[in-house]
Amino acid sequence: MKAITSRDNPLYKRLKALAGSTHQQRRSHQALLEGFHLASAWLEGGSQPEYCVVTEGALAHEDAQDIVARVDERRVITLPDALFGQLSNVVHGVGLLLLVDMPQAQLPERVESTCLVLDGLQDAGNVGSILRSAAAAGIDKVFCTPGTAYVWSSKVLRSAMGAHFLLQVFENVEVETLVEVLGVPVVITDSHGAQAIDEADLTGPVAWVFGNEGAGVSQVWRDAAALRVTIPQPGGMESLNVAAAAAVCVFEQCRQQRNARR
Amino acid sequence: MKAITSRDNPLYKRLKALAGSTHQQRRSHQALLEGFHLASAWLEGGSQPEYCVVTEGALAHEDAQDIVARVDERRVITLPDALFGQLSNVVHGVGLLLLVDMPQAQLPERVESTCLVLDGLQDAGNVGSILRSAAAAGIDKVFCTPGTAYVWSSKVLRSAMGAHFLLQVFENVEVETLVEVLGVPVVITDSHGAQAIDEADLTGPVAWVFGNEGAGVSQVWRDAAALRVTIPQPGGMESLNVAAAAAVCVFEQCRQQRNARR
Repeated sequence: MKAITSRDNPLYKRLKALAGSTHQQRRSHQALLEGFHLASAWLEGGSQPEYCVVTEGALAHEDAQDIVARVDERRVITLPDALFGQLSNVVHGVGLLLLVDMPQAQLPERVESTCLVLDGLQDAGNVGSILRSAAAAGIDKVFCTPGTAYVWSSKVLRSAMGAHFLLQVFENVEVETLVEVLGVPVVITDSHGAQAIDEADLTGPVAWVFGNEGAGVSQVWRDAAALRVTIPQPGGMESLNVAAAAAVCVFEQCRQQRNARR
Repeated sequence: MKAITSRDNPLYKRLKALAGSTHQQRRSHQALLEGFHLASAWLEGGSQPEYCVVTEGALAHEDAQDIVARVDERRVITLPDALFGQLSNVVHGVGLLLLVDMPQAQLPERVESTCLVLDGLQDAGNVGSILRSAAAAGIDKVFCTPGTAYVWSSKVLRSAMGAHFLLQVFENVEVETLVEVLGVPVVITDSHGAQAIDEADLTGPVAWVFGNEGAGVSQVWRDAAALRVTIPQPGGMESLNVAAAAAVCVFEQCRQQRNARR
């Protein structure tokens, strides 16, 4: 265990630069996992973090001790509260985070099971909520096209509540490449002239594509779509929040699959 | 039309205080509706704002001209960009907002149709997404218990995309009072020992209760619940985001109601 007490320490400066910039995190393929829940979920995967950073106060907590005990001692750094506070994105945080290298999964040669495509989703809360729904629905692969929020940013991590560690997430996937490897039909949601979602056959595997909050699904996916479904909305609203729509879609598919097995 | 050019103008100071404090907005029962979409949705309801505030640049836009034309001329205020910027909660805003008095609906004597209860939901994005789903599902009443995010805050307004104007939203509703006026069965979501949502009968009107992001539904609603349903989740996640879960619930009810009418 090593104590850092100066804000001029090079490692501290590096941590601070990363904490302040999602762009920097993305470029270095690293993430800061803050809090017991995320740290514990990461360690369960069997990987070591580059560093485990804790405040001395946090070390009094049993949860923190459990996490620190699972990290190679040379990788544990203690910080005073004031220095830790500048790394934290949480208002009343617990004073513990892991600096980890991101898993960089190779694009599979062929996708044969249900998966999600996030096509330029910008809101971190939406991306996190969708990852959480996907993991809950038993989906294992999520592909993000360029322009989608960085999935390993602190906001997405927080709102996904550990879903990252139940999924394979592929970032910056070029659409043309992805269309080639998809061995399952592409399904998009559309309010105009599409089939009601509960009348479409969703019992087999599909690739769900969800588009940008403003612009919707891009043309290349419209062209690739084998199925266009709509969520019938008796009220006067024009559309749903994309994460709400995604949840309705994937759990409607779960419902149909349960029924088909009966 | 009146031009304000000084930041010491009393009206400007009042607007700035309101813009900077959700607490202040809640106390004065007022809201700032920013952008063409929200302003236009408000005006369609037939009420006048207290003020319509625009930048001179915005007045060049046809959309802004349309809105200003619908407001009593004495209520229109122009501001320089720099002053307007300090009122705005939007990064690339259009330079137009309405200051409006909130509708303060009286609690109905008896609720006989499907409604939503937000029981201490704290995240503005979740509250907005749920209002949007409710309006899309044709639900007309939403009750918020104390502790729920202020529904007329700029964040909730933005994420609800105008749903506020299709709903009756009741704020700060005491739970004991609400339980008394509910003439429909209370339904809560629960992961333990509850009935799968598609096996429960949701063809009649119900009161859906959605709880706080961390603590869940409070005990008083657990005691009042006539039905506890669960969204079957084949994956390894413990739970869904509350706005995602709410969408699945209300659209599963819509699906059952469509089927029942067939």
